[in-house]
Amino acid sequence: MTIPTSATAPFAASTVGGSHRGARPRPVVAAHVRHGVRPASSFALSAAETATASSTAEIDVNAAKAAAAAQGETVRSLKDALKKGDVTKDDVDAAVKKLLELKAIVEQLENPAAAAAAEDAGAKAKDASSAGNPSAGKDVGVTPKSQDFSRWYLDVIRECELADYGPARGTMVIRPYGYAIWEAIQRWMDADFKKSGVQNAYFPQLIPYSFITKEASHVEGFSPELALVTRGGGKELEEPLVVRPTSETIVNHMFTQWIQSYRDLPLLINQWANVHRWEMRTRPFIRTLEFLWQEGHTAHATGEEAEARAVQMIDCYARFAETVAAMPVIVGRKSRVESFAGADCTYTIEAMMGDGKALQAGTSHNLGQNFSKAFDTTFLDEKGETRHVYQSSWGVSTRLIGGIIMTHGDDAGLRLPPELAPIQVVVVPIAQKNKDKAAVADAANAIAATLTNAGIRVKVDDDDRNSPGWKFAQWEMKGVPIRVEVGPKDVAKDACVVARRDRPGKEGKEFDVSTVEPTSLVAKIRGTLDDVQASYLAQAKAFRDANIVDVSTYEELVAAVEAGKWARGGWEGSDEDEKRVKEETGATIRCFPFEQPAGPHKCIMSGAPAKEVCIFAKSY
Amino acid sequence: MTIPTSATAPFAASTVGGSHRGARPRPVVAAHVRHGVRPASSFALSAAETATASSTAEIDVNAAKAAAAAQGETVRSLKDALKKGDVTKDDVDAAVKKLLELKAIVEQLENPAAAAAAEDAGAKAKDASSAGNPSAGKDVGVTPKSQDFSRWYLDVIRECELADYGPARGTMVIRPYGYAIWEAIQRWMDADFKKSGVQNAYFPQLIPYSFITKEASHVEGFSPELALVTRGGGKELEEPLVVRPTSETIVNHMFTQWIQSYRDLPLLINQWANVHRWEMRTRPFIRTLEFLWQEGHTAHATGEEAEARAVQMIDCYARFAETVAAMPVIVGRKSRVESFAGADCTYTIEAMMGDGKALQAGTSHNLGQNFSKAFDTTFLDEKGETRHVYQSSWGVSTRLIGGIIMTHGDDAGLRLPPELAPIQVVVVPIAQKNKDKAAVADAANAIAATLTNAGIRVKVDDDDRNSPGWKFAQWEMKGVPIRVEVGPKDVAKDACVVARRDRPGKEGKEFDVSTVEPTSLVAKIRGTLDDVQASYLAQAKAFRDANIVDVSTYEELVAAVEAGKWARGGWEGSDEDEKRVKEETGATIRCFPFEQPAGPHKCIMSGAPAKEVCIFAKSY
Repeated sequence: MTIPTSATAPFAASTVGGSHRGARPRPVVAAHVRHGVRPASSFALSAAETATASSTAEIDVNAAKAAAAAQGETVRSLKDALKKGDVTKDDVDAAVKKLLELKAIVEQLENPAAAAAAEDAGAKAKDASSAGNPSAGKDVGVTPKSQDFSRWYLDVIRECELADYGPARGTMVIRPYGYAIWEAIQRWMDADFKKSGVQNAYFPQLIPYSFITKEASHVEGFSPELALVTRGGGKELEEPLVVRPTSETIVNHMFTQWIQSYRDLPLLINQWANVHRWEMRTRPFIRTLEFLWQEGHTAHATGEEAEARAVQMIDCYARFAETVAAMPVIVGRKSRVESFAGADCTYTIEAMMGDGKALQAGTSHNLGQNFSKAFDTTFLDEKGETRHVYQSSWGVSTRLIGGIIMTHGDDAGLRLPPELAPIQVVVVPIAQKNKDKAAVADAANAIAATLTNAGIRVKVDDDDRNSPGWKFAQWEMKGVPIRVEVGPKDVAKDACVVARRDRPGKEGKEFDVSTVEPTSLVAKIRGTLDDVQASYLAQAKAFRDANIVDVSTYEELVAAVEAGKWARGGWEGSDEDEKRVKEETGATIRCFPFEQPAGPHKCIMSGAPAKEVCIFAKSY
Repeated sequence: MTIPTSATAPFAASTVGGSHRGARPRPVVAAHVRHGVRPASSFALSAAETATASSTAEIDVNAAKAAAAAQGETVRSLKDALKKGDVTKDDVDAAVKKLLELKAIVEQLENPAAAAAAEDAGAKAKDASSAGNPSAGKDVGVTPKSQDFSRWYLDVIRECELADYGPARGTMVIRPYGYAIWEAIQRWMDADFKKSGVQNAYFPQLIPYSFITKEASHVEGFSPELALVTRGGGKELEEPLVVRPTSETIVNHMFTQWIQSYRDLPLLINQWANVHRWEMRTRPFIRTLEFLWQEGHTAHATGEEAEARAVQMIDCYARFAETVAAMPVIVGRKSRVESFAGADCTYTIEAMMGDGKALQAGTSHNLGQNFSKAFDTTFLDEKGETRHVYQSSWGVSTRLIGGIIMTHGDDAGLRLPPELAPIQVVVVPIAQKNKDKAAVADAANAIAATLTNAGIRVKVDDDDRNSPGWKFAQWEMKGVPIRVEVGPKDVAKDACVVARRDRPGKEGKEFDVSTVEPTSLVAKIRGTLDDVQASYLAQAKAFRDANIVDVSTYEELVAAVEAGKWARGGWEGSDEDEKRVKEETGATIRCFPFEQPAGPHKCIMSGAPAKEVCIFAKSY
C-alpha cells in the first residue's frame, strides 16, 4: 500500500508547476496554485490522514487539486511502467487508491454539501482491497483541454471509455459508451430519412476492382486509399476485390438492373455500413482506416430533382447538427478542389472545433450523370426515350462523435448534448450513516423510476464502494448533462439537488427541488435538459462567431489562420491559387456558405470583384 | 406490341402440361388443367378480347391460370432473350402487359366481388403504354413451391424484391423489402439483449492474421473460409489482415485490456456487423460470402455463469423464433463434430424448412477458457488470484430471413409472420367508376390512418394504373398478412372486406367489417394479425411434427432421411460413426434436443443403451 518513491517522486515534482488536472470544469492553470503549500508528493503520501483534517476546510482547494493532478501523473506513469513490467499491478492499484482519495478531498473542499459523505468514503478507502475497489486500475481525469487540446481529446476518448485502438494500425474499437452515442445519432437520422421516403438496403462490401475504375475522377480520388482482398478461401483471386471506400459504383451496378422506366424514379436508398480508407495519419473517430457511416444513394429523372435532394440532405444534416448535436455549422458548397471524386457539386456542413480547426461533419453530393453514364444507368422517360438518371449521394459517419467531443468538451472532460447523451441523468444517493442508507436508496430509485417512465435515460450510481465525490468527478468527466443528488436531508424534505453539467460548481446546483409531484419533477428535469442543450449550442455559436474573421487581403488571411481562426472573404481565385494557399498556410476552402453576407465582395487574392465569399480554415 | 412467335411458342407449348403459376395459394398441378380449352399461346394472344367475355365467368378458371402460367414463362424467356440481345425491350413489355391482363382475368374469375374493377383495369390495359405501365418489365408470380422448391425459393427472393445477386461471386444485395424484415428482427433482438444487460459495441473488421492462429481448433475451422486483405494504400502489407469471419479473437484481444478484476465481470457485449466466409456453394440469405449478423461476446468469472449465458441466449433465440418468426424450432446441443471451432459446447435452434431440410437458425457457444487462455484474458478474483475468464458467444444472422421464407411460403409466394412483416395490412381501394373514386379513396385513407395511428404498418395501394386483381396477386406474393378491400358498396355501408393471407380465396375473407368505430376496427385487425401469426406457427408445427420419425436402427434412419424426414433416435456412436452417416446419407446430427423423450434409449448404430436421442437430418 505504499507508493514506490522512485516512480512517484519525479512525476509528482514535475507536475507541481505544470499539469493540473481537476475534476471541475474551471480553468486550472499554474498561476492558480498558491506557493508555500505542502508539495504534491508529500500531500499524496499523507492523503488518508488528510481526509479527516480536510473536512475542516483548512487546506487550500487548489493545493488539493495540484496534489490530485500530481497523483494522476503518477498513476499514468505507473501504468506505462506496468506495461513494460517495471512495476507490479499492486503498485498501480495503490497509487490509484490514493488518487481517488485526493479526488474525494477536492470534491469535499469544493462541495461542502457532500462533505460528510466524502469523508465516509475516505475512511472506507483505507480498508478497500485493490481487487475490491472498482476504481482500481482505472485512470481518473483528463489533461485539461486548455493545456493540450490533442492530448485532452485522446484522454477523453480513453478515460470516458468511448473508444480504444484496434490491433491493426489505424483501426478503432467503439466501446459501449461511444457506441450508444452512435445509436442515438442513428435513431434520429434513420427516422428522418424514412420520413422523406428513403428506404434502407444493404450492398456487398466487396466490389470488383474494375468497378472503381469506371468513373475517371472517382478512381483518381480513391485509388490511393483502397484496401484490396486478393486471396479468398485459400486461393489467389483472379480479380482483386476492393473493400468499399464508398458504394457509388456497386449501387449504380444494381440501379442499372432495378430501374426501367421513369415510374421507378425517384429511387431513394440508404445503407448503414462500415467503410475502409487506407489513411496514413489517423485519429480516433475523426480519421480511421475503418469507420461506420450511412450512405444515401438516389436516382432521379431530372437534374433539378437530384440537386434538390442533395440540398435537402445537407439541410437535414445541418438540422441534426444544430438541434440534436448542439453543434452549429456553416452550410455551403465545396470548392472544385475539395469536392467528392465523381460529384458535379459537393455540399458540406463545417463545424468549428474547440481548437478553432474546422471539421467537415457531413457531405451531400450532386453526382449529375457521372456514375449513370459510367454504369449506363438509364430509364425510359414518358416519351419512351432512353435517358441516363441523375443522382445524389450523401453521408455522415462516426466522425460526428469526434465533432461532438471537440465542440462541447471542457477541462473536466466530455459534455454531451442531452439529445444524444446515453445517460441524461445520473442519480447519486449520498448516505453517510447506515441508518439513512435504505431511505436514501429508496428515494433515489423512486426518482429514477419517475424519470425513466417519462422516457428520460437515467442511471442510479448506487455503487457504495465509490465516494460521492469520485462519482461526481466521474460522471462530469463522462459528460452526463444532469446529476441528481439525494441525501438524508433531501429525503426529509421530499426533495433533491439538481446539478447541471453546463454550469460548474455551486452555480449549476439547484437545491430543494421537490420530488413530491412526479409530473413537476419530470417537467423540471425536461426543462433543465432543454436548457443545457440550448446552452451548449449558444456557447458553441458564440465561440464560433468570435473566431470567424472577415479578411480582404491575403495577408489578413494568413494572419487569421495563424491565429487559429477562420478567414472569410471574397474568392475568385483559381484551383492553383487555392492549392497555393493550402501549401503556404495549411488552410483550405471549407466552403462557400449558402448564407452570404451582403456584397459587393472582392477576391482576397486579386482584389477583383467576387461573386461569393468563402471560408478558409485549417481542418481535421 | 406483338409477341415474336419464335420466342413465345415453344415456351408456351411446353408449359401447358407442366409449369402452372397462379397467384392463388392453392396447389395448381397439371391434373387441374381441363383439356380441350384453348391452348395457352392463343389464349395469351387474345387476352385483351377475352377480358370482356370473362366477366360472364364462362371461361374455366384453371384454363385462365394455365394461360397466365404459360404467359409467365414467355415473359421469363423473353427477359433471358433480352439479356442476350435476341429481342427488344418492347417485346418484353408487350408480353408483360398481356401477362397482367391474364392475371387480372384469373382474379376476376376467382373473385367476383372485384370483377367490375378488374374489367375496368383490363380495359385500361389496352391503352397503357409500356413506359406508363408500372408493371412493365416486372416479372409476376413464382414457380409453385410444390413443383420445384429450390426454384420457388429463388423466385420468391427475386419477385418479392427481397434480395439480388451482387457482382462478386456469392455476394448478395439485400433490397429494401428484405432489409425491412432484418430491421424488424434487429429491433426485437436488440431490445431483448439490452434487457438482459448486454451493451452494443463495434470491433474492427480487419484482424491481424496471427490472431486467428492463436486458438488451435478455431484456425482449423475457419482458415479455409478466410478472405485476406494483402494490399492497402497501394502497398503490400507486412502481415495480411483477415476480413472477420467472426470476432472471438479480436474481442478477446480487447477484453484482455478491459478486464482487470472480478468487478469488471460479467462483461456482456454485442455487435451488429457484416462477416465474410469464403463459401463455395452459396444460396441467398442461407449461405453467402458476406452476411449480416449480431455476435454476442461475454466474459464471466465462472464456468457456470458462461454456461448459463450460453443457454440463456439460445433460449432467447428460440423465443424469437416461435413468438416472432412463428418458426418452431428444436433447441439442443450440437455434437462435437458439428460444434463451433473453439467452443466447449455449442447450442442450436434447428428449424424444419418446407422441403423437410433442417436449418440451423441460431447458435450459442460456451467457449470455456479456450480463447481466454489463447489471449491471456485474466482477472483478479476476490482472493487476489489471477484467473482466466470463462466466455460465451452467440449469433443470429440474415439467414433467419431465408428460414422465414422457407418455413411459411406457399405456392403463391411469401407468407410473412405479422410480427415481422414490413407491411402488415395493405388497403386496396376498388372503384370502377370515376364518380366513386373520391369516396373510395377517402374511405381507404381513413382506414389506413386509423390503423397507422394504432401502430400497425399499413400501405394503401392506390396506384390506379394497376388492376385490383393484379394488386391482390402482388401483395399475396409479397406475403402481406392482411388485405383490406374497399369498394363503393363498402363505403355505402361504412364497412370494408378483410382478407387473410393464411386462408386462400373466399374462405379467408370477412365481409362487412364495420369501419365506424376506429377502436373496434383496430381490435379486429389486431386480432386478425394475431390469428394469422398463430396459424402460421400452428401450420409449421404440424408440418414439422408430421415429418419427424422415431428410428431405432440405421436402416430406419436411412429410410427416413431418404423420405426427406428427420430421424430421431438414441446415439452413442463415435465421431467416425457420425461422419460415416453423413457420407452415406447426407444427414448430420442436427442436435441432441434439450427436451428428451422418456427413455430408455438404444443407439441407432449399435443397439447399446444410449443416454440421449439425437436428430439426424439433411440440412442447409
